[in-house]
Amino acid sequence: MKLYNDTYFDLKGIVKLKTVIIGATGYGGVELIRLLQNHPHFEIGGLISSTKAGESIQDLYPHLAHCSYSLRELTLDTICELGECVFFATPAGISSQWAPLLVERGKVVIDLSGDFRLATEQIYQAWYGKDAAPQRWLDQAVYGLSEWFTAQIQSANLIANPGCYPTAALLALAPVLQAGWIRTESLIIDAKSGVTGAGRTAQQAMSFSEVNDNLRPYKVDGHQHIPEIERYATELAKHEVKVNFIPHLVPMNRGILVTIYADLEDQYTNQDLYELYRETYESKPFVRIVGQRWPQTKQVQGSNFCDIGFHVDQRTGRLILLSVIDNLVKGAAGQAIQNANIRMGFAEEAGLTDSPLFP
Amino acid sequence: MKLYNDTYFDLKGIVKLKTVIIGATGYGGVELIRLLQNHPHFEIGGLISSTKAGESIQDLYPHLAHCSYSLRELTLDTICELGECVFFATPAGISSQWAPLLVERGKVVIDLSGDFRLATEQIYQAWYGKDAAPQRWLDQAVYGLSEWFTAQIQSANLIANPGCYPTAALLALAPVLQAGWIRTESLIIDAKSGVTGAGRTAQQAMSFSEVNDNLRPYKVDGHQHIPEIERYATELAKHEVKVNFIPHLVPMNRGILVTIYADLEDQYTNQDLYELYRETYESKPFVRIVGQRWPQTKQVQGSNFCDIGFHVDQRTGRLILLSVIDNLVKGAAGQAIQNANIRMGFAEEAGLTDSPLFP
Amino acid sequence: MKLYNDTYFDLKGIVKLKTVIIGATGYGGVELIRLLQNHPHFEIGGLISSTKAGESIQDLYPHLAHCSYSLRELTLDTICELGECVFFATPAGISSQWAPLLVERGKVVIDLSGDFRLATEQIYQAWYGKDAAPQRWLDQAVYGLSEWFTAQIQSANLIANPGCYPTAALLALAPVLQAGWIRTESLIIDAKSGVTGAGRTAQQAMSFSEVNDNLRPYKVDGHQHIPEIERYATELAKHEVKVNFIPHLVPMNRGILVTIYADLEDQYTNQDLYELYRETYESKPFVRIVGQRWPQTKQVQGSNFCDIGFHVDQRTGRLILLSVIDNLVKGAAGQAIQNANIRMGFAEEAGLTDSPLFP
Amino acid sequence: MKLYNDTYFDLKGIVKLKTVIIGATGYGGVELIRLLQNHPHFEIGGLISSTKAGESIQDLYPHLAHCSYSLRELTLDTICELGECVFFATPAGISSQWAPLLVERGKVVIDLSGDFRLATEQIYQAWYGKDAAPQRWLDQAVYGLSEWFTAQIQSANLIANPGCYPTAALLALAPVLQAGWIRTESLIIDAKSGVTGAGRTAQQAMSFSEVNDNLRPYKVDGHQHIPEIERYATELAKHEVKVNFIPHLVPMNRGILVTIYADLEDQYTNQDLYELYRETYESKPFVRIVGQRWPQTKQVQGSNFCDIGFHVDQRTGRLILLSVIDNLVKGAAGQAIQNANIRMGFAEEAGLTDSPLFP
Repeated sequence: MKLYNDTYFDLKGIVKLKTVIIGATGYGGVELIRLLQNHPHFEIGGLISSTKAGESIQDLYPHLAHCSYSLRELTLDTICELGECVFFATPAGISSQWAPLLVERGKVVIDLSGDFRLATEQIYQAWYGKDAAPQRWLDQAVYGLSEWFTAQIQSANLIANPGCYPTAALLALAPVLQAGWIRTESLIIDAKSGVTGAGRTAQQAMSFSEVNDNLRPYKVDGHQHIPEIERYATELAKHEVKVNFIPHLVPMNRGILVTIYADLEDQYTNQDLYELYRETYESKPFVRIVGQRWPQTKQVQGSNFCDIGFHVDQRTGRLILLSVIDNLVKGAAGQAIQNANIRMGFAEEAGLTDSPLFP
Repeated sequence: MKLYNDTYFDLKGIVKLKTVIIGATGYGGVELIRLLQNHPHFEIGGLISSTKAGESIQDLYPHLAHCSYSLRELTLDTICELGECVFFATPAGISSQWAPLLVERGKVVIDLSGDFRLATEQIYQAWYGKDAAPQRWLDQAVYGLSEWFTAQIQSANLIANPGCYPTAALLALAPVLQAGWIRTESLIIDAKSGVTGAGRTAQQAMSFSEVNDNLRPYKVDGHQHIPEIERYATELAKHEVKVNFIPHLVPMNRGILVTIYADLEDQYTNQDLYELYRETYESKPFVRIVGQRWPQTKQVQGSNFCDIGFHVDQRTGRLILLSVIDNLVKGAAGQAIQNANIRMGFAEEAGLTDSPLFP
Repeated sequence: MKLYNDTYFDLKGIVKLKTVIIGATGYGGVELIRLLQNHPHFEIGGLISSTKAGESIQDLYPHLAHCSYSLRELTLDTICELGECVFFATPAGISSQWAPLLVERGKVVIDLSGDFRLATEQIYQAWYGKDAAPQRWLDQAVYGLSEWFTAQIQSANLIANPGCYPTAALLALAPVLQAGWIRTESLIIDAKSGVTGAGRTAQQAMSFSEVNDNLRPYKVDGHQHIPEIERYATELAKHEVKVNFIPHLVPMNRGILVTIYADLEDQYTNQDLYELYRETYESKPFVRIVGQRWPQTKQVQGSNFCDIGFHVDQRTGRLILLSVIDNLVKGAAGQAIQNANIRMGFAEEAGLTDSPLFP
Repeated sequence: MKLYNDTYFDLKGIVKLKTVIIGATGYGGVELIRLLQNHPHFEIGGLISSTKAGESIQDLYPHLAHCSYSLRELTLDTICELGECVFFATPAGISSQWAPLLVERGKVVIDLSGDFRLATEQIYQAWYGKDAAPQRWLDQAVYGLSEWFTAQIQSANLIANPGCYPTAALLALAPVLQAGWIRTESLIIDAKSGVTGAGRTAQQAMSFSEVNDNLRPYKVDGHQHIPEIERYATELAKHEVKVNFIPHLVPMNRGILVTIYADLEDQYTNQDLYELYRETYESKPFVRIVGQRWPQTKQVQGSNFCDIGFHVDQRTGRLILLSVIDNLVKGAAGQAIQNANIRMGFAEEAGLTDSPLFP
């Protein structure tokens, strides 16, 4: 696969690179389908589903009535036949078993699940309650926070695509963590998410009647995205970071907003923040610094943007950061394609240039 | 039970009449709990659940955290001990077996399911796909459309509480059917319902992500409320009535709106309609004639009202009727209590005098 | 402008055709922006707003924070400078004055408002309560129901883009109207729309608190889309057609569902319907015949599709047609671009190939 | 008015005490109407509206179609004639002028606006940007946080009913503030509210299309409830407290959830919290301690309950408090009636005993 970077200019416009989606029947999977269908350099080589093999995706999703994709069995040979770049949009505990085999067969793997995001087997097992991938594969995986690990992604064969909450939180936090502007022991992340984050599911607690006109905190005693945030916050801050992270379920389909609170190390102003954030993200096409025009979730709906706002409260010496993404795009399928673009040497924005759908 | 009518004045203020709710864990059941808790003459004697016996209702429904009801087993002796007036808020196929036994033991039964609403065993089996109650019990049951069968309800021991759609449709239709003002062969009922009509459920198709911001027709090829509407429309019109009835699922929790279309037999005006409807429903506390201030569902939310609007289209000679109810109140638990009030000789409005919750 | 058809192949890939959006600050306008931004052959030459000239669109719409469009004054010279193909996304009463002037200056005009859809000045004034465009311009305008007036659109300089409700209704009705399969005097259209149909507005009746969890019929005594539907239904049926059309406001942002009822002329079956509809729309990329998998609005969200379902009720001899569109896409901006594609000789699907956003 | 406490037992059941609602056409006003209609000891003496005098409330609110209230002019004599207990459900800046006059005429005034909640004229003017009530009236007003200022309320003639956010926040915070268990300099309040908090309004930003499926932070740089929270938090903690308070607008009608973060002074456990909170609120009918069954907003919908949950995070030594109310009931009209009950010597729960409406 290494050669794609070299031969990109020859390939452009001539053939498209074949991709495979494993776990194609979930919301992450169908979002990958939507985005890959209009991609200039990728095409869908095949869809895999362990539970729905033999069915056609358009029977499961009527919005795809104009398509004709059949779901294939999950076997190594099938995947290898169907494409070169493999996306896992599976629940925790699947890619840990399959991704290493595919990388060994020369494929590039982008894993949207949490299986390769944590540092050690022990931590994974503690937070996910499942068997971890072998340590050497955890070590080999590259964290796909596109804007911050670009160089590593360019040559990675196993990319751990970030969780939706960590993406929103870390993109907002990274500049001040790296600059050392905040007291990390004071870090609080109050997160709010739309309902698609829970996946396509048949649960009473996720039924319309129970969720509509309702707001609900959940996993107040511990969400599996905490160790992921702490791992990379620590890496960016260059000292150990612990956070409180409390997620809430909001009656809307898509969108995450994180509201982050941290004590400032010094008397920074909103102007200082503007400078830091604009400079940091100047060349990044998907991060929009909106500053004191505090972002709302719908302004990124259906797009790969992350919009970041902030406010320095002079009364309390505290910084408030606000960050929004579409959890299915920048928080999942969109960032996965952004990472695939980076890996293959395509333009980072390729296939991701649609403006948000509003309203 | 007959004596309650006689002794009501003595009982008033001294003791409350004990009720039992079977199927207390569904939305109809908890709505009965809500309404009975503040009733001046009824109290909750016990709650029955075949699937959750032994649990407490407040564990299943956090909004009842201030209560202390335990769910009891479904046995004949338990029910008989717990109260005199028994509400079935069960799925189809339960009350057909149990209600006759209770009536034979001297209880008054109000059945919120469809088991006793249809004329014959054959019709029930055809539309519900289940074994019907014995024909003699179908014959004995009184249809609990409170405003139209008041006299029969006063002495009934087995009351078939109407379905939510039939309630909204028949209350709107009854005056013109009885008056012979419409050509019944042209009758079309386009119905729209909130999601609680589907009950408390764990279905992918009812999950928030799939229902929110979406509108969906369903059972276009036949809904089990069709024979119920046709039976009583026929009775009111005094000739056979067939209808098209198409339900739609609206992304809201409560509320039904039916939009009814029918060719007029003669050149009636909106003024004629006002007179007919006001006269018909003059003494009925829960029917509000709103005429050309076309009703919206939220104006009856949480209340037992049925609001009826109309418009005569002079261009086409057609009548449009609009009728809204809260499907869980006038379409289920509220009308059940209204019927219990009528049966026991209490004021028809007792326990049902709350204004709607708006907005 | 005539030359564009001839020179399309030369232009392709070399330059893009400049478009102007008048009324760019409404929901129809920003949807045009979204779709034109990714169009292979069109680009945005300029945005016009009579009320917000001088402001930038990204200040009015934060989802466009990555753009840099300024709103220009509404003057003839400005428009003429900015582009060749002009879209009016204005309220009724604007394009009637401006479009003729632009056509006379050699521009192609696509009008998303209702100003050129009706047959006579009298009818327009009666239903819109405003001064009509001159009769000769009404006569010259071509109705832009893309699938049915393709030939006329190819050479039109003034295209009256259909209303959202008429698009959904006529696409569903046209095959049976043309085939003479239904008794048109029995035609009833029960329509349901999301809230964006009302435009970007500051009205109490459209506030979230009043609309959420609520369903509301409106304009029961006459909606301005009635004469538009009747005009083209009459043309397709080749005899005069009158309809009842009752719209309802559904608590969702996008989407229209029309449920159409009509008596069948003969004993047609669902199979007959499948054949008729599949044959009729075989070559039309945006009409998906879903038959008895009755369509829901979200399955076309953000896309230019119109999905059509149906059911023959053998009990009543009546046909039920179900048709869904996204009111801002196929019901407005999408169909406008489809018409522009047809007019310019581009591929009909150009710029409109995104799959729907689901969920 | 003092005598009502003495003569309550005589009055009970004989006459009802007349109330007047000023600002009856807002959401707070109609919620007062809903609750007072079923109150055992109060009745509605009259409704006042400065903008809609002469109209009838049922024309403005179709859910009240069964009522017959006319709106009266705002004059001192009118109010004095109509009743003894006066509720202000007006925007800021009205009651500051009128309430003193009414108290001087012997009325009991309960003010749902913010005019009498802050300590000094200067602070009010700084946060509300309006002229304050005279300082001696600010001094005289009693803060109506029913559970914490009961004794003062019993003899107050001017009750400043708390804001919705301060009610939710202070009821959760008071026990730990009073006990000295938290480091108040670390206090962060992340608040989320439904849309009715903004009142009945015609604003584009509050339109359904803009709010639906969207989550939006607002007033990040300062909300007028901050000084109110800080004033009473300071009083309870007995030292100066400053907070960060960031509100968010959630796409739902009713309900507030506050998520509060604070460093613990010592190693308290969840069990310690249970004991403290249960003991504190043991005799308070409207506070339900739900502990680690974290509360969701809908579980209090339409009711006067405040449900409080919590979690001690041992990893960070931080306490998370969760508190939900219905902003129009416990956050406005319900608490106002609770305060009126306390003031008049009625049972604290009188008229407020309905269970929440769920779902």
